[in-house]
Amino acid sequence: MLDALFKPRSIAIIGASNNPFSIGHIVIRNLTDHGFKGPIYPINPKTMHIRSFRTYKSVLEVPDEIDLVNISIAAKYLPQIMEECGQKGVKFAICHTAGFKEVGEEGIAREKALVEIAHKHGIRIFGPNSQGIQNSNPEVSVYANFTFVPMNPGAISIIAQGGGIGEQLKLHLYNVGVGHRMYCSYGNEADLSMPEILEYYGQDEGTKVIIQQIESFKFPAEYLRVASAITPHKPILAIKAGRTSEGSKAVSSHTGSLVDQSAMATAMFRKAGIIEFHDVDRMVKAAIAMERLEPPKGNRIGIVTNTGGPGIQAVDESVDGGLELATWSDEGKARLKETQLPMASLGNPVDVVATGGPDHYFHAVDTLVKEEAVDMVLVFFVTAPFVDLDAIANRICEVTASTKKPVIMVVETYKKYYSLIDKLRHGGVPVYEFAEDGARVLAAMTRYSVLKNRKKEDPPQIEVDQKKVERIISKYQNSYLPQDEAFQVISAYGIPVPRFVSYSGDTAEAANKVGFPCVLKVDSTDVVHKSDEGGVVLDIENEDELAKAFESMKNRFSDPKTRFLLMEQKPGGCEIIIGLTESPGLGSMVMFGLGGVFVEVMKDVMFSVAPLSRPEAREMIEGIKGYQILKGIRGKKGVDIMAIEDLLIRVAKLGSDFPTITDMDLNPIITYPEGTSPVAVDVRIKVK
Amino acid sequence: MLDALFKPRSIAIIGASNNPFSIGHIVIRNLTDHGFKGPIYPINPKTMHIRSFRTYKSVLEVPDEIDLVNISIAAKYLPQIMEECGQKGVKFAICHTAGFKEVGEEGIAREKALVEIAHKHGIRIFGPNSQGIQNSNPEVSVYANFTFVPMNPGAISIIAQGGGIGEQLKLHLYNVGVGHRMYCSYGNEADLSMPEILEYYGQDEGTKVIIQQIESFKFPAEYLRVASAITPHKPILAIKAGRTSEGSKAVSSHTGSLVDQSAMATAMFRKAGIIEFHDVDRMVKAAIAMERLEPPKGNRIGIVTNTGGPGIQAVDESVDGGLELATWSDEGKARLKETQLPMASLGNPVDVVATGGPDHYFHAVDTLVKEEAVDMVLVFFVTAPFVDLDAIANRICEVTASTKKPVIMVVETYKKYYSLIDKLRHGGVPVYEFAEDGARVLAAMTRYSVLKNRKKEDPPQIEVDQKKVERIISKYQNSYLPQDEAFQVISAYGIPVPRFVSYSGDTAEAANKVGFPCVLKVDSTDVVHKSDEGGVVLDIENEDELAKAFESMKNRFSDPKTRFLLMEQKPGGCEIIIGLTESPGLGSMVMFGLGGVFVEVMKDVMFSVAPLSRPEAREMIEGIKGYQILKGIRGKKGVDIMAIEDLLIRVAKLGSDFPTITDMDLNPIITYPEGTSPVAVDVRIKVK
Repeated sequence: MLDALFKPRSIAIIGASNNPFSIGHIVIRNLTDHGFKGPIYPINPKTMHIRSFRTYKSVLEVPDEIDLVNISIAAKYLPQIMEECGQKGVKFAICHTAGFKEVGEEGIAREKALVEIAHKHGIRIFGPNSQGIQNSNPEVSVYANFTFVPMNPGAISIIAQGGGIGEQLKLHLYNVGVGHRMYCSYGNEADLSMPEILEYYGQDEGTKVIIQQIESFKFPAEYLRVASAITPHKPILAIKAGRTSEGSKAVSSHTGSLVDQSAMATAMFRKAGIIEFHDVDRMVKAAIAMERLEPPKGNRIGIVTNTGGPGIQAVDESVDGGLELATWSDEGKARLKETQLPMASLGNPVDVVATGGPDHYFHAVDTLVKEEAVDMVLVFFVTAPFVDLDAIANRICEVTASTKKPVIMVVETYKKYYSLIDKLRHGGVPVYEFAEDGARVLAAMTRYSVLKNRKKEDPPQIEVDQKKVERIISKYQNSYLPQDEAFQVISAYGIPVPRFVSYSGDTAEAANKVGFPCVLKVDSTDVVHKSDEGGVVLDIENEDELAKAFESMKNRFSDPKTRFLLMEQKPGGCEIIIGLTESPGLGSMVMFGLGGVFVEVMKDVMFSVAPLSRPEAREMIEGIKGYQILKGIRGKKGVDIMAIEDLLIRVAKLGSDFPTITDMDLNPIITYPEGTSPVAVDVRIKVK
Repeated sequence: MLDALFKPRSIAIIGASNNPFSIGHIVIRNLTDHGFKGPIYPINPKTMHIRSFRTYKSVLEVPDEIDLVNISIAAKYLPQIMEECGQKGVKFAICHTAGFKEVGEEGIAREKALVEIAHKHGIRIFGPNSQGIQNSNPEVSVYANFTFVPMNPGAISIIAQGGGIGEQLKLHLYNVGVGHRMYCSYGNEADLSMPEILEYYGQDEGTKVIIQQIESFKFPAEYLRVASAITPHKPILAIKAGRTSEGSKAVSSHTGSLVDQSAMATAMFRKAGIIEFHDVDRMVKAAIAMERLEPPKGNRIGIVTNTGGPGIQAVDESVDGGLELATWSDEGKARLKETQLPMASLGNPVDVVATGGPDHYFHAVDTLVKEEAVDMVLVFFVTAPFVDLDAIANRICEVTASTKKPVIMVVETYKKYYSLIDKLRHGGVPVYEFAEDGARVLAAMTRYSVLKNRKKEDPPQIEVDQKKVERIISKYQNSYLPQDEAFQVISAYGIPVPRFVSYSGDTAEAANKVGFPCVLKVDSTDVVHKSDEGGVVLDIENEDELAKAFESMKNRFSDPKTRFLLMEQKPGGCEIIIGLTESPGLGSMVMFGLGGVFVEVMKDVMFSVAPLSRPEAREMIEGIKGYQILKGIRGKKGVDIMAIEDLLIRVAKLGSDFPTITDMDLNPIITYPEGTSPVAVDVRIKVK
């Protein structure tokens, strides 16, 4: 429980100062300005009082219990301070102080030592190199953070690794008159981890929406577990910083982490049901609507406007975001015809035209929310000089109060009429500046709805020969497996492979086992791109050709240790690729795509976190652009998609059963129409 | 010249009214509130004065000359009013009045009649169904428009088909303290056309940037001509509403136009050097920076921040937008090391850290703008509570005043510190709210720079047999051409085709002309998807096979009028598709993509407006994602790209020489490595 951190009954400020530019001063000011409900104890051995607070020389001098300390003094004093806090029975220490992990070796050692002292005393450290926490819960009203944006109560909780982004999120909310619930920017995660905080947010009843920014995952598996448990009840909106390789480098110079986690992040977010964003503004705007409104039941949008252009922008953006334009029932059409001006346009968008007044807006919006085939409504309103603004706001609020369907507004006006916006917001209607914003927000809510309601299953129970794989891969370390054993590994997990034998010139015997046509391949861990290096002979039709092919290949790969593989040649079909990659701290990631240029040039791939449930496997298949090709195009029969689903599940199980497999490529797997099993004709496995 | 419209010396308001919600009242208020420099004559036969202006019964009663009238009375009175305006010698009439083209047949007739009267008298009509015009030029200061956003002088001119979008653009500028130059929303374009207005904006010295929203092009060819002449001197930023098919439908219900012009718009924008946007907010934000700053010389960005997260967002967005992260010279590195705090991060982004003060910012930004390898600088600043904000603004303005490289700022702060933003803006620095905005703005400026500086050439002179094509296609109307004649058409334009003959069973003779292997095809305008309908036999190796194939095909297509084509069979290669489509009002559009699924499933195509210059053809080729495949991947030799360039130029010339060709598909064209000519193995041509 993190109550002593987010609901502290008392706080001591170690490094309290009269210098108004110091953290130790600003935190006290923030706490008092926002009416913290408990006592504040400034600690400073050199001065008698700070602001109007009497100071204490150390925490040990404080006569009462201390739940939380904020520490901003230099790193070198921290071990001693932590010992004192331990003696005092402090529960949480927010360490603003920097100079730890983020500065390299020495800092890492310092950080480790500090955590050891804390744990000895049962103290949990938040940070170091952290910005602090806030909680607008009126029972505590704690602003133990050195930032500047005023805190107002709200139901959006924020958790940001980057303090600058965290502040920006708060700032935007503040600027549009929305408060927030809890806030923190957690720094180095030396002790208290981001997933622990997220879990706490998840349990907080006052938190309706969680938004977060992550630069690097320190505990990805734990994050996945915690987030997955939250998203069925409340939405999590997230940005993983560094989606480009350049951005990823910028992350690593900022956080000291070295791994590019962007593909992993997207896969984790999807698995956990988190809504992913790339833009800070889009994320925070979506959160504002999600705090107030239930997500839509489906993806059908109705749009009302009083001017054409923004309506069209809303349509384009909605469709881009996966929404569908609703159509009206006969009753709906009749009511619109009856209630709207003759010039009005009664399709979707409904254009009530610039002279449309309060009643026109009321009937248009009310008709739409009452249509069964409408899941959400976007209302655009430019404050035309012809109409009564107050009455419009009132009548729209009348509708929104009567419906559970999300209705959001975009108002085009300037400061003279901002009271209109206030009135709408007061009535619970989220208001945005641009039509595109409104459409994107509704699309994001719909994404949440889909994620929340998607079918959840456990990975299916499948029969595999785990023992056999264990026997094989335990023989190798930090190397590729030979082809024949790699085939045995996947075969043990039920992945169909061609008939094959290790080949050393025993033509008749081998041909007997494999049959013609067949393929001769070099089987050497040194030869990675076999085809490119002339290590594959296809279309061998008889024993003669086989003998000749073997002769010439022996010449090409003359190392006597080189082995060769003879393999049944499979007929052509639709090629796919399935891969596995180790994702440190998380486990194994599965990759899926069509063969060749579709992966290499078109970058049309999906990643997912192993193991996979059936719907997750299906999602990967349907998630690539080339899915249409698998389904069959222009009268061509599609391939057996259930079989691919099965392959993905098996590969994923192999990955999660054997974390020592750092890389695996089944490239290509040839797939065929239903009735013919797909087959992995090449495989590459690397183990730790 | 449109001076009498945008710089009227006098204005009469026909339909002037004391009703404060009427257009005839609001326009007078807007004109007087913004200090129009000429006399205003309210026309109203029923009242003595409106506001404090003496009214006139008709324009004929006005004792002075009238340049411009604003008309907002009902449509039925307009013919008579227009006659009076003619007698009076009025030069321009802004018709706010609706009820014309946009309401259907009757309105179209009314509109045509009105224009006829106007032209008889030399009056130009702006509209009807238009919002009006504005010009902040202090010599006139005219606000002849019924909208509500106050007008301040600036150098961005706006031209919007959708009045709601136009107003939104003005509004955003106003909200961030930026003015605008000219403004108009032109309605039905019954007489005065959008390209004419655009041309006038282009010639206006006070206009530095033009932004526009278009719902449908009435005069696309003229637009292309006018815009192309402007963009080398000043940027045009544009949105074409309706980029999705649903959006396009919404446009047509708004404007009454029926053609989906979205692909055409993108192609025209590229040809004309216009920067295309999809979002209103992104467009207007880019305009703000382009009004003040020169475009960058290259695409290398330097970033300065005082907090990590927004720096990373800026990196991700920059890279996504085609920018490159600059690296510093040794001198630059040394200066940064010398001038920055020990905790600062000196890569790109430079993180001066939250305690970085005015000098740190100054040296960081100044170092970057002086680096030869930096073309533009993005500066992020969160108002950390530790530093002197005023001094930071001053020192940054010091740098920006000393450089021609674009420097823009993103400031994270709240209203208490808005004076900082004012100071920066006053110093000529554009300021944005989110790091992503800043990166996108710089990427847009870079796009302009590329468009402005790209190589411009005329379409090359090529030899073609235009006469022959004329002879062939003049025989057909509203139909597909037979295969053999379609081949003759493209062959006449220098597009290589296989050897072919019309075939009717003359085995030996035909085989002699074409050779083996060959292909037998049905040649019937009724059979469009020949392969799918069994109308193609491949791999015919000898006369026997040919006879057999012919027999079976004759059975399949038993209509005695059906013709057949025997064609040389070309070896496999990399397949591409080139197409032509008529684009009404513009001419012919060329389409290019890789064969099969790359076009059908991956939608990886480029469109361009015919005719094509060599760089334009090259741009199309390089513009598809699959370009890498053409260049050659994984050691595979690439195809002859110059030859594809040549094909595109020839197809484009065919399209522009013969506007009667409404559709043409060369699908596939087989391409080979240099040395082997590509060849169009199938062609479909449809004429009007």
